Amino acid sequence: MKFSPLLDQLINDLQILPGVGPKSAQRIAFHILERKRDDAVSLAHSLEEAMTKIGHCQQCNTLTELDICAICANPKRQVERILCVVEGPADVAAIEQTNQFSGQYFVLMGHLSPLDGIGPDEIGLDKLAELLASGDYEELILATNPTVEGEATAYYIAEIAQEYGVKASRIAHGVPVGGELEYVDGATLSHSLLGRQLIN
Amino acid sequence: MKFSPLLDQLINDLQILPGVGPKSAQRIAFHILERKRDDAVSLAHSLEEAMTKIGHCQQCNTLTELDICAICANPKRQVERILCVVEGPADVAAIEQTNQFSGQYFVLMGHLSPLDGIGPDEIGLDKLAELLASGDYEELILATNPTVEGEATAYYIAEIAQEYGVKASRIAHGVPVGGELEYVDGATLSHSLLGRQLIN
Repeated sequence: MKFSPLLDQLINDLQILPGVGPKSAQRIAFHILERKRDDAVSLAHSLEEAMTKIGHCQQCNTLTELDICAICANPKRQVERILCVVEGPADVAAIEQTNQFSGQYFVLMGHLSPLDGIGPDEIGLDKLAELLASGDYEELILATNPTVEGEATAYYIAEIAQEYGVKASRIAHGVPVGGELEYVDGATLSHSLLGRQLIN
Repeated sequence: MKFSPLLDQLINDLQILPGVGPKSAQRIAFHILERKRDDAVSLAHSLEEAMTKIGHCQQCNTLTELDICAICANPKRQVERILCVVEGPADVAAIEQTNQFSGQYFVLMGHLSPLDGIGPDEIGLDKLAELLASGDYEELILATNPTVEGEATAYYIAEIAQEYGVKASRIAHGVPVGGELEYVDGATLSHSLLGRQLIN
């Protein structure tokens, strides 16, 4: 015991946060005790409320405290008949920010990773198959991360889509906008050559 | 609104933590929602309890939920008749780890900083003067940080100690153990020369 029991407990509990070890936890504890007591009390309330009430959307599987999330419940989203498959809720937010997509999402909450025991059922592919079987969608956009696991997951899902006669597409890989060719890695550059498009 | 209301609220509230902006808050929120729900509920409880119950020790001013902290309440600590003045509770923990000091502490919870409106009363020097007046202490060790403000605070307190006829000492500045002379800054090196000690 280095400090008083309550303070020790707080410093200990703060270490569940990602990237926070004993020293940072101590710094955080003193910081909020000295300067942000009221804010920290509201943080405590929203933490507890979020942890006990937030579950998964029954349709798209994203994190939400509602039964059906706001995007799935929006009738304008249904007319597009496009489903975009992403790995996590943060990806939904990133795509929403582009204002380029007005269909619906399906959130895997991870990717296929057989070595870690994460198979098709763990990422909700049974639920995705049901959605595809409903006939509500014409196209499936596979927007998983451009990593080995993300690619494998995308190709696995593309096969399922084929079974249900739904068109599957993969987001384009290539040179990031604003980047310089010189600094782009070889794999990205070869993707950008293979995926070249005719100008008008 | 990027996510559901509760999730947005959580991401917003997490930003009171030092060094946490919108992106990190989002990452933290998803991390704990996916992997540490139970731990996060106990964090919420210890946060709320700490924020509402932790106050200052009536004697040494450190952060504690007790009226008198464990160190001040320890009778073995009183017989030493030495008081060590530090800037914060983390400094108490650091000095305790050395096992070199068995007297009592006085925690300023800051340092003199007239430009920020932090004068002698804000760092509890009136309370320190009362302790010195009690005649319970023979020596005052000034262990404030070796910064401009810390030094100024130390010299200011040394003058108060003199008024009460209590010996005041300052912790030694010099080359850190295990460091290399080549990489030590000039100010530290000149302190280590001025503070040189005869070998036996």
